[in-house]
Amino acid sequence: MFKHIKDMEYTVHVDRPDPRFANLLLEQFGGPHGELKAAMQYFSQAVGCNNPQIRDMLHDIAAEELSHFEMVGECIAMLLGPTDKVSRDFPAIHMALLSGGPPITNCMGAPWTSAYIETSGDLYTDLASNSTAELRAKLIYERLLQQTDDAGVKDMVRFLLSREESHNFSFMQAIETLKGTGTDANFRDSEFSKKYMNLSTGVGDSRGPWNQGNGIQYEECPNEKYGGPAQYGKDRGADSKGEVGPGYNDKTRNNPQYTQPKPITPNVPGQENQMH
Amino acid sequence: MFKHIKDMEYTVHVDRPDPRFANLLLEQFGGPHGELKAAMQYFSQAVGCNNPQIRDMLHDIAAEELSHFEMVGECIAMLLGPTDKVSRDFPAIHMALLSGGPPITNCMGAPWTSAYIETSGDLYTDLASNSTAELRAKLIYERLLQQTDDAGVKDMVRFLLSREESHNFSFMQAIETLKGTGTDANFRDSEFSKKYMNLSTGVGDSRGPWNQGNGIQYEECPNEKYGGPAQYGKDRGADSKGEVGPGYNDKTRNNPQYTQPKPITPNVPGQENQMH
Amino acid sequence: MFKHIKDMEYTVHVDRPDPRFANLLLEQFGGPHGELKAAMQYFSQAVGCNNPQIRDMLHDIAAEELSHFEMVGECIAMLLGPTDKVSRDFPAIHMALLSGGPPITNCMGAPWTSAYIETSGDLYTDLASNSTAELRAKLIYERLLQQTDDAGVKDMVRFLLSREESHNFSFMQAIETLKGTGTDANFRDSEFSKKYMNLSTGVGDSRGPWNQGNGIQYEECPNEKYGGPAQYGKDRGADSKGEVGPGYNDKTRNNPQYTQPKPITPNVPGQENQMH
Amino acid sequence: MFKHIKDMEYTVHVDRPDPRFANLLLEQFGGPHGELKAAMQYFSQAVGCNNPQIRDMLHDIAAEELSHFEMVGECIAMLLGPTDKVSRDFPAIHMALLSGGPPITNCMGAPWTSAYIETSGDLYTDLASNSTAELRAKLIYERLLQQTDDAGVKDMVRFLLSREESHNFSFMQAIETLKGTGTDANFRDSEFSKKYMNLSTGVGDSRGPWNQGNGIQYEECPNEKYGGPAQYGKDRGADSKGEVGPGYNDKTRNNPQYTQPKPITPNVPGQENQMH
Amino acid sequence: MFKHIKDMEYTVHVDRPDPRFANLLLEQFGGPHGELKAAMQYFSQAVGCNNPQIRDMLHDIAAEELSHFEMVGECIAMLLGPTDKVSRDFPAIHMALLSGGPPITNCMGAPWTSAYIETSGDLYTDLASNSTAELRAKLIYERLLQQTDDAGVKDMVRFLLSREESHNFSFMQAIETLKGTGTDANFRDSEFSKKYMNLSTGVGDSRGPWNQGNGIQYEECPNEKYGGPAQYGKDRGADSKGEVGPGYNDKTRNNPQYTQPKPITPNVPGQENQMH
Amino acid sequence: MFKHIKDMEYTVHVDRPDPRFANLLLEQFGGPHGELKAAMQYFSQAVGCNNPQIRDMLHDIAAEELSHFEMVGECIAMLLGPTDKVSRDFPAIHMALLSGGPPITNCMGAPWTSAYIETSGDLYTDLASNSTAELRAKLIYERLLQQTDDAGVKDMVRFLLSREESHNFSFMQAIETLKGTGTDANFRDSEFSKKYMNLSTGVGDSRGPWNQGNGIQYEECPNEKYGGPAQYGKDRGADSKGEVGPGYNDKTRNNPQYTQPKPITPNVPGQENQMH
Repeated sequence: MFKHIKDMEYTVHVDRPDPRFANLLLEQFGGPHGELKAAMQYFSQAVGCNNPQIRDMLHDIAAEELSHFEMVGECIAMLLGPTDKVSRDFPAIHMALLSGGPPITNCMGAPWTSAYIETSGDLYTDLASNSTAELRAKLIYERLLQQTDDAGVKDMVRFLLSREESHNFSFMQAIETLKGTGTDANFRDSEFSKKYMNLSTGVGDSRGPWNQGNGIQYEECPNEKYGGPAQYGKDRGADSKGEVGPGYNDKTRNNPQYTQPKPITPNVPGQENQMH
Repeated sequence: MFKHIKDMEYTVHVDRPDPRFANLLLEQFGGPHGELKAAMQYFSQAVGCNNPQIRDMLHDIAAEELSHFEMVGECIAMLLGPTDKVSRDFPAIHMALLSGGPPITNCMGAPWTSAYIETSGDLYTDLASNSTAELRAKLIYERLLQQTDDAGVKDMVRFLLSREESHNFSFMQAIETLKGTGTDANFRDSEFSKKYMNLSTGVGDSRGPWNQGNGIQYEECPNEKYGGPAQYGKDRGADSKGEVGPGYNDKTRNNPQYTQPKPITPNVPGQENQMH
Repeated sequence: MFKHIKDMEYTVHVDRPDPRFANLLLEQFGGPHGELKAAMQYFSQAVGCNNPQIRDMLHDIAAEELSHFEMVGECIAMLLGPTDKVSRDFPAIHMALLSGGPPITNCMGAPWTSAYIETSGDLYTDLASNSTAELRAKLIYERLLQQTDDAGVKDMVRFLLSREESHNFSFMQAIETLKGTGTDANFRDSEFSKKYMNLSTGVGDSRGPWNQGNGIQYEECPNEKYGGPAQYGKDRGADSKGEVGPGYNDKTRNNPQYTQPKPITPNVPGQENQMH
Repeated sequence: MFKHIKDMEYTVHVDRPDPRFANLLLEQFGGPHGELKAAMQYFSQAVGCNNPQIRDMLHDIAAEELSHFEMVGECIAMLLGPTDKVSRDFPAIHMALLSGGPPITNCMGAPWTSAYIETSGDLYTDLASNSTAELRAKLIYERLLQQTDDAGVKDMVRFLLSREESHNFSFMQAIETLKGTGTDANFRDSEFSKKYMNLSTGVGDSRGPWNQGNGIQYEECPNEKYGGPAQYGKDRGADSKGEVGPGYNDKTRNNPQYTQPKPITPNVPGQENQMH
Repeated sequence: MFKHIKDMEYTVHVDRPDPRFANLLLEQFGGPHGELKAAMQYFSQAVGCNNPQIRDMLHDIAAEELSHFEMVGECIAMLLGPTDKVSRDFPAIHMALLSGGPPITNCMGAPWTSAYIETSGDLYTDLASNSTAELRAKLIYERLLQQTDDAGVKDMVRFLLSREESHNFSFMQAIETLKGTGTDANFRDSEFSKKYMNLSTGVGDSRGPWNQGNGIQYEECPNEKYGGPAQYGKDRGADSKGEVGPGYNDKTRNNPQYTQPKPITPNVPGQENQMH
Repeated sequence: MFKHIKDMEYTVHVDRPDPRFANLLLEQFGGPHGELKAAMQYFSQAVGCNNPQIRDMLHDIAAEELSHFEMVGECIAMLLGPTDKVSRDFPAIHMALLSGGPPITNCMGAPWTSAYIETSGDLYTDLASNSTAELRAKLIYERLLQQTDDAGVKDMVRFLLSREESHNFSFMQAIETLKGTGTDANFRDSEFSKKYMNLSTGVGDSRGPWNQGNGIQYEECPNEKYGGPAQYGKDRGADSKGEVGPGYNDKTRNNPQYTQPKPITPNVPGQENQMH
């Protein structure tokens, strides 16, 4: 259950209205790296989580992100100032039209969508996703700091920025306890998980630890070694590697004579296909 | 510039049509953790990147993700089979209605949106985001493997799964070369970046490395120590920490007598506010 | 600030997994009339609200809707059951693919969007909007009740249904205290606010209190009395009602000889228009 | 069937182009409280309506909203003025890029979506929803009136504003004829529909007719009385209210030893679960 | 102005409810090639159109598409049948949950969006876009015909299919009157408008009238002839074609030593950039 | 498979940063008529295409559009200039907040969506759709040309504009080879495909080749001849044309006594309908 307390988690103190900055700050209210996104990502992960300890952490941080969502919202509302009569060049006129509170959009007016949420249901992966969500949120706050001179607002933004670092750190620590589980199990144990395909070529081609060392094989033309045209046919077994040759054959989609096989679908009596 | 080569990067070999699985596989064609998302995320990062070495890596992997996008698409088209006349219980009837090719949606029909892309413009952060995108993609492939018996399709899915691991590894290696830059600079150096707020309470409260050790302070009621109602007023300076007291005062939004200050907006002659 | 308590507001008790109903229940998790929509609508109104009493009510109910969001989410997660290995006809296979927790979508997989939120910034109007949001939520729960036999789930749904009624009642009571303010001021005091335009004609035309009595005038062809083609020209003053006649004239867009007047835009030196 | 008549319902008379206001006016063309939303909401309700009298009213008003959609669109097109060559600071440059007609978006460029529509299929509820949609539309027009000095445009906006009032009134009158039906039947007849949960606490807690009187019970900690952790188990019958105790037990998700029960899904021969 | 007439444009005659087909038919109610899309596309073009004759045609066809929107909607509502109590395997259960009328979505539940609309503001182009929209709509109807046996429904679908052909024909005829105007003026008169770039290579490369004859030049490596790395520098004038050489130079983004030039932005006194 | 080459297809040469134009140019990066839309439309058609020759053309042009997507993206990144510290009136401040690369949105910030894609699975239709997509893209480039003075940027835009013409031409040529197939087969061969319904009436009604000649019949009131109220009943056979009369009857939805027939849904034992 959620309880709301009529205090901010941290002081929200605005010197005077600044509708231009109010509009920019929307990015962290209803934007892709903002507080609602963080709260909803961690909360929905908590709901699906069967590990009580990690679930506790997800609920702790989700509740704090909701509290940040409130701080950012209150700050926007105060920066917006009165909107009952605004001049023609009011820098947040769409908020004045909708009047009063902050809309749940980014700073360009795009509505918040749960498409922003990156969740997989695997704890190792989800905590990794969360740790990077915190980094992105921190960055936006760093850039927002450059866009205001209001000392109270700057103080609040610095607090939020620090909290993102704190959450990032917690997620990283928790990941350590999950090493070797989930997506981290049996990791990089196949032939193809140790290759690097150099598919962008020309002046500027570079080598670094990401494509050399650590048993990495560097390849240029994987299609010539492993690929060929897409085709139907008997499944390629372990001992039939050479069966499917490159180029045209009668099961190849590039072949003009190619005919698609019939799908296998159940027969439902009385529902035969009909032409019009 | 991009060139297309009329071979798959890796064999796409389908035994026979299976429209049900074709529909599930859409998740990796036009879904939030799918191949188009990966390709577009890395490509748009490459375009904005001023580090030529990292840019090369981003272009290499973006081009490979586009090649995977093609493999998944071809596989769906072949699994779908002929759609000119389908029975009433065809398991991918919306694809038959739109006929032929795979729509760029997830397996539930939600259109692909660039809201899926997690990019910040900071290299350290972006590579971290990318590494987790690869983990999520790997997971979806692991679950898809359980839903088909077609050996050719399984082989392709295992290839794609391995490639996600490979990309994850490359991104992690590249991050090492960027330690201490971008969001990783001056990290966790403030008072608030070392606290853990226990905002979810009750039976199940847990402690772990994420909220103890490493200089972490554990707190229950940050609002009582650092917060209070939102209010307007003189900026809180370093030496005026106690000035803004909790509860009602004449600048507090919770106060019924509270009046909002006027925003400062430029005067444009001849555009005074008017009532109707 | 928000605090999370590790108990449900009301018992969430599921007899056994039922993935089919888990999928339907998503409608109230991430759908247009669901709990997140209600929580976000009331919360964002609270943030923009300058009336402390109404703000308190909005925060009370928003916090409860978040608590319902949690109840519905927990219920879905339990109804879903284990998703590590599911059969080919698992009735919520997209949730198994994304594994574990409930995605923030409606029952058809459409992502939640803040476009669902109906807010205007006027208290009278917003409370009215909220009261109807509760009615719609109640209805969905009534229909969901018909789709499950699990006594625990039914009990929870009945609780939620009753709470929507309670919220509707609170909003209606609060509206009474705001009569004559906001949109309710100077209401229906013009000539045109008392007409009814019969723009749908034919067998079935009906009269009722919505188009007769209460000073309502019933009209069939408003265009012939008040309209005509759209046109530019001197503003229609109070005493020039007949000036703009119907049909073609030189300021009428329907006239082939009509020329658009130039817009008035500021001159910026050095930025003259150019053709290519 | 729809017929279009080449006159406006009411005079659309623009003095001269004003692209800045043209852009603002988009809010009522393709925005969440605009004319298309109203027309589509009432029209789709009419299509689903089995009460011929209410259906007639819905069709009347839907047709009028379509006529308003046209008026607003014509007004935007005329306010926009010629767009074949525009200066660099043209205040609606995205409309000039797309040239000519008004795009069906709000004033921030967000595409219109049917997610704006609030419909439930219950007449009592739908008419209530419609009545509030009219209030919100009226408000936007009131604010738009402050942003233009063009007497013709102001006259049109005042007409539209009055018509929203008229529609609101008609919907409210029609609701009276449906009292006690649909969602209004058996309303607020349970224990929980008469409680008020005070879930937002602190300085500013308020009492009013929404949480006192009328048989309302005021409660602070519903979770302690009615809740507890979510759990599986035998359905809670009428006589087993105390069976499910708070805290850990072997069916509780907060319990680390907790095991999820198996879902009951139909067996499909030949489709057993497989590991990869 | 729009008038609604309480008759269908053409008989809508349903034998008995068929919720499965009702769901499929949604594709033409609120889908990307459906009736609302057509109506909104032509209507918004009409609003922006300064040619009275073409505007008349656009209004005629838009009004007819709205009438088709109604026919499809009525047909869905009748095919849906009563939804007050439906069995657990009702094939359109989301419509039963939302009860009664057809939601404005496609057959997969994706909300209608104005992103479906293809409009450019150029008459020649818009009529061409419209003609193809009609072809796509016709196709969906052809496929829908195969999915129902209800003679009344089939008759209505055939009518709608024929009307799309009729509209396509009208648009094609109207285009003839605009030859050489708009986008058709000065068409294909540059060097690059007569080349074909063979950027997909391998077995399957084909030649046809689209890449040979008609003065078409066929090229394989445009980058080597016309391209190179992106760079800053003096504008390439007519006589300086060779100035920008391929490979690294000090203005090239691929060059590690490359430094971005400063943007030219106006100075606003008192708003100097600040670091935090 | 896709390969990326580290050269542009055509010179991208920017004189100096111009963030205002960078923002406008987003329209062709992530907008509805932009390069990504074209690339994804043709690529997904190619994947679904069973005609190897047309498939080759679709892949050629899709790969080129991806190369244009890159050119436009590089151009935006260079026009944006450094974003580490920007002034308060930086004309693309949302891109500075997200820092560095171009977001995949249109110039108003609306995220790219696959709802932009117009595909039907019929080759004749798809090529026609593609040809008009090229016209729209060309138009946006023509208008963008008027908004910049940078000779390098203008040169690139003119190249892109010419390429759209070239693609349009190729698609038109290819259509010729498909005449009489797909949607072009049995075209306009029914009674109703040769009528023109004059549903927009009033001053301005026009005649032209779109509604006269070519065997076109011109009609005003189709509902009176072919329509009537929607109703259930025995299917209207060829010889029973007059059976369904206009006005009220017992199967008509406009009739207050009308009762909906029961839908035919399969019985599933043990899942009878239940009331709550």
